[in-house]
Amino acid sequence: MTPFIAEIIGTALLILLGGGIVANDILNKTIGKGSGWMGITTAWGLAVFVGVVVAGPYSGAHLNPAVTLGLAVGGLFPWADVPTYIAAEFIGAMIGSSLVYVMYKDHFDATEDPTVKRAVFCTAPAIPNTFRNMMSEIIGTFVLVFCVFYFSEAEISDGSGTKVGLGSIGAIPVAFVVWGIGLSLGGTTGYAINPARDLGPRIVHALLPIKGKTHSNWSYSWIPVLGPIIGAVIAALLFLILG
Amino acid sequence: MTPFIAEIIGTALLILLGGGIVANDILNKTIGKGSGWMGITTAWGLAVFVGVVVAGPYSGAHLNPAVTLGLAVGGLFPWADVPTYIAAEFIGAMIGSSLVYVMYKDHFDATEDPTVKRAVFCTAPAIPNTFRNMMSEIIGTFVLVFCVFYFSEAEISDGSGTKVGLGSIGAIPVAFVVWGIGLSLGGTTGYAINPARDLGPRIVHALLPIKGKTHSNWSYSWIPVLGPIIGAVIAALLFLILG
Amino acid sequence: MTPFIAEIIGTALLILLGGGIVANDILNKTIGKGSGWMGITTAWGLAVFVGVVVAGPYSGAHLNPAVTLGLAVGGLFPWADVPTYIAAEFIGAMIGSSLVYVMYKDHFDATEDPTVKRAVFCTAPAIPNTFRNMMSEIIGTFVLVFCVFYFSEAEISDGSGTKVGLGSIGAIPVAFVVWGIGLSLGGTTGYAINPARDLGPRIVHALLPIKGKTHSNWSYSWIPVLGPIIGAVIAALLFLILG
Amino acid sequence: MTPFIAEIIGTALLILLGGGIVANDILNKTIGKGSGWMGITTAWGLAVFVGVVVAGPYSGAHLNPAVTLGLAVGGLFPWADVPTYIAAEFIGAMIGSSLVYVMYKDHFDATEDPTVKRAVFCTAPAIPNTFRNMMSEIIGTFVLVFCVFYFSEAEISDGSGTKVGLGSIGAIPVAFVVWGIGLSLGGTTGYAINPARDLGPRIVHALLPIKGKTHSNWSYSWIPVLGPIIGAVIAALLFLILG
Repeated sequence: MTPFIAEIIGTALLILLGGGIVANDILNKTIGKGSGWMGITTAWGLAVFVGVVVAGPYSGAHLNPAVTLGLAVGGLFPWADVPTYIAAEFIGAMIGSSLVYVMYKDHFDATEDPTVKRAVFCTAPAIPNTFRNMMSEIIGTFVLVFCVFYFSEAEISDGSGTKVGLGSIGAIPVAFVVWGIGLSLGGTTGYAINPARDLGPRIVHALLPIKGKTHSNWSYSWIPVLGPIIGAVIAALLFLILG
Repeated sequence: MTPFIAEIIGTALLILLGGGIVANDILNKTIGKGSGWMGITTAWGLAVFVGVVVAGPYSGAHLNPAVTLGLAVGGLFPWADVPTYIAAEFIGAMIGSSLVYVMYKDHFDATEDPTVKRAVFCTAPAIPNTFRNMMSEIIGTFVLVFCVFYFSEAEISDGSGTKVGLGSIGAIPVAFVVWGIGLSLGGTTGYAINPARDLGPRIVHALLPIKGKTHSNWSYSWIPVLGPIIGAVIAALLFLILG
Repeated sequence: MTPFIAEIIGTALLILLGGGIVANDILNKTIGKGSGWMGITTAWGLAVFVGVVVAGPYSGAHLNPAVTLGLAVGGLFPWADVPTYIAAEFIGAMIGSSLVYVMYKDHFDATEDPTVKRAVFCTAPAIPNTFRNMMSEIIGTFVLVFCVFYFSEAEISDGSGTKVGLGSIGAIPVAFVVWGIGLSLGGTTGYAINPARDLGPRIVHALLPIKGKTHSNWSYSWIPVLGPIIGAVIAALLFLILG
Repeated sequence: MTPFIAEIIGTALLILLGGGIVANDILNKTIGKGSGWMGITTAWGLAVFVGVVVAGPYSGAHLNPAVTLGLAVGGLFPWADVPTYIAAEFIGAMIGSSLVYVMYKDHFDATEDPTVKRAVFCTAPAIPNTFRNMMSEIIGTFVLVFCVFYFSEAEISDGSGTKVGLGSIGAIPVAFVVWGIGLSLGGTTGYAINPARDLGPRIVHALLPIKGKTHSNWSYSWIPVLGPIIGAVIAALLFLILG
C-alpha cells in the first residue's frame, strides 16, 4: 500500500465511523438514537484508532491535513509529500462521508430538520462568534498536534536504544487524545480539528441529492479549515522552540 | 485445546456476553435496564475481548464465519479448515445464547413484548429495506475484516525482525474495532457483522420454549448472513489488490 | 509486602472503589448520582485494575476467594496458601467497605430507603429465585475464573521463549473482563462473583451503626458465596479437562 | 524541555482538558451539555493521559503537588526539586484554566448561576462538612499516590532485568486510576485530589473579570489543598513501612 492509498483508506475509515456515530446519534429511527456526547466522542476516538491501525504502518496515518502540515513545519515530514497527503486526506474524507450517506439514507429521509442532516457531514458552532470559534479550533488542534510530536514508542532501555514498536496497540494513544479533546474541548464548535474532516464532507453535502437539505453553511466553512492550520503551526513552533 | 474447541468456547463466551448485555438493557426488571447504546456497544466490544483472550492462542479466535471466510479468501487461512471453524462458531453461538436464556429466563418472563424477547437473540433492522440493510451489514463487516488483515503485532525493530506477542493485551485492538463499528455503524441494522452471531441464536430462539414468543423473523435472517459474507470477501479482495 | 498484606490492601482498594461507585450512584445528594450501569460497571472494572496494579507483583492479586480456590483446584496455586489468601481477602473487603462508609456517611444519612443503603455493601437479586440467582453467580464467576486461567503474558517469540511482563499495563485484561461481565451478566443479581466482595461488606453492614438501616438480608447471603465457588470450580475443572 | 517547563505544560494540558469537560457539561448551550458523571470522569482520566504523554519523559509528569510531595516523602524524588515542581504545577494549572475561560467565554456569559460558573474552576462539596470533606480528599489522594508508588514498568524477565519502557502506552495506568477514583470517590467533594488543580484555577476565578461571578469560596479552599497533602503523606509512609 502506498502512503497515498493508505491516507485515503485511513481517512475514509475515520470519517465513515466518525460520521456514522453522528448519524446514529441524531438522525431519526436509528437504533443508537440519543447515544449522547460520550457515545459521539468515544466513537470518534475509536474511528481514529481504526484509521491508524490500517494506515499507520504505510503512511504514518496523519489522516488530517493539520497533522501533515504541523509535522512538516516541525521538520518531521518532508514538504514535498505534503500536497499528496492532503489530497489523499480530502479524497478519503469524501469517500467516508459518502458511505455514511449510503448506509444511513433511510434515516436521513426519516429526519425533517435540515440542519440535523447537515450536522452528520460538518461541524457548526453552538454560539456563532468568529473570533472565539476560531480560538476553539486552534486550541483543540494545538492539543492534538502537540501530543503527536510527543508520542513516544516503547523502547528497551538497556542502553542499546533498541526500539520496540507495539503494533496495533500503538494506535491507542492518539485515539485516547482525540477522545479527550472531544469530551473536553468539543463543546463549543464540535471539534473539527481537521480541515479534511470538515471541508471534505461539507463538499459531499453540497453535491449529494439529499432530500430536503439546506445550504452547506459556507460562511462558517473556513473556520474549521484555518483554525486547525493555525493550531497545528503553533504546536509545531512550540515543539521547535522547546527543542 | 484444539482449534475446534477453542472456536466453540470463544464464540460461546462472545455470545454469552453479547446476548447478556442486550438482555440486561431491554428485558424488564434487570439491574442494568436502559444501559443504552454505549452500554450495549461497550459490552459487545468486551465480549470480543473475552472470546479472543481465551481462544486466541489456540485457534486465532475468528469467532465469526465472515472472518474465517475472509482470511481464507485472503490466503491467510487454509480452506480445508473453513468448515470446521464455521461449524464450531455456530455451535458456540448456540451454546452462548442458550446460556443467556438460562440466566435471564425470569426477565424474559417479566417482559411482554415478543419482539423485545427476540432482540436478545438476533438483530432486526430499524427501517426494513433489503438493499440498504444489506449495504449496512456489508460495510460494517468490511471494516471488521479489513482491520483484521491489518492488525500488526509488536516487534523489536532492531533489524532482527523479532516479533513480540503482547499476550492478552493483544486482544484490545479487535475489541476496540468492534466497539467502534457498533457505535458508528450499528444504528441501522444492529450490526450482526457475523453470520454465527445472528443465525445461531435465531435458531435457538426458534427451538427454545420461550413463553409468549413470536416467530423468528426468518424473512430477514438471510441478510445478516449474506451481508457479512459479501463484506468479508470484499475486504479480502481489497487486501489482495493492495498487496 | 507479603502476599498476605498485598491481598488485604488490594482487596481493600477493590472494595473501596467498587463500593464507592455504588454509593455515588444511588445515595442521595452525591455529585455522581445516577451515573447508571455504565458508570457502575466501568468503575468496578477500574477498581479491579487498581487492586491488581498494587497487589499483582506481590501476591498475584487474586482479590477474590473464588479465584484463589479456582487456581488451587486447577493446580496453579498451593492449597497450603488458600486459607491465608481467603482470610486476607475478607479482611481487605471489610476495610474497603468501612472506608466507603466513612467517606459517604453524610450521604447515607441523606438517604431514606434502607435497601438503598444496604445495596452499597452487598448485592441483591432483581428477581429472587434461588436456582436462577445461583445460576447467574455460577456463570458470571465461571467467565471470570476461566479467563484468569487463559490470560497470557507478553512474550518474545524468537524461539527463546523469553517472557516480557508488561508491568501495570498487564492489569488491563482482568479489568476489561470484569467490566464486560458486569455489563452483560450483572443484570440479574448484581454480579457478586466474589464471596469476599459480598459477604465481607455484608458483615460490615451488620456491624456498623448505620442510621435507619434494615437487616442484612442473610437469607440471600449464601448464594453470592456458594455460586462463585461452584463457578470457579467448574472453570478449573474445564481448564484441567482441556489441558 | 526542562522538567520545570514540562510540569507547566503537562499541568496546563491537564487543567485545560479537565476544566473543559466541566465547562462542556454544565455551562449553557454547549454541545456536550449533560455529558454526566461518566463524561466528566472519563475526560479527567484522559486529561491526565494527555499531560503524562507530553510531560512524562521530561519530568516524570507529577502534574500534582501531592504527587511531588508524596514521592519526596517516599524517598523517590529529591526534596531540592520540590519547590520548582510545585511552582510549575500551579503556573500550569492557572494557564490551563485561563484557556478554558478563553474557549468557553460565550458559554459562561450564557449561564446565569454563578456557582455553576465557579464549578468550572474549582471543586465544592455536595454536603459541606469539614471533617468528612477532608476525609474524602485524603482517601482519594491516598489511592492516587499509593498507586503511583506501585506502578511498575514492563520488563523482560529472562533474568537480565532489562527494563522495557512502553512509551506513551505507559501513561494508561495513571489515567485509569484517576478515572476510577473519579467515578467511585468523587461523589462527595468532586475529587480535587490535587492542590494545584483546585487552588490554581480558584485564583484564576478570583482574578478574571467573569460576568456575574460570585466569590471564590475561600472558606472551603484549604480543604482540597490540605486533604491531598495529608493523603499523599499517608500513602508515602505506608509505602515506606511496607518496604
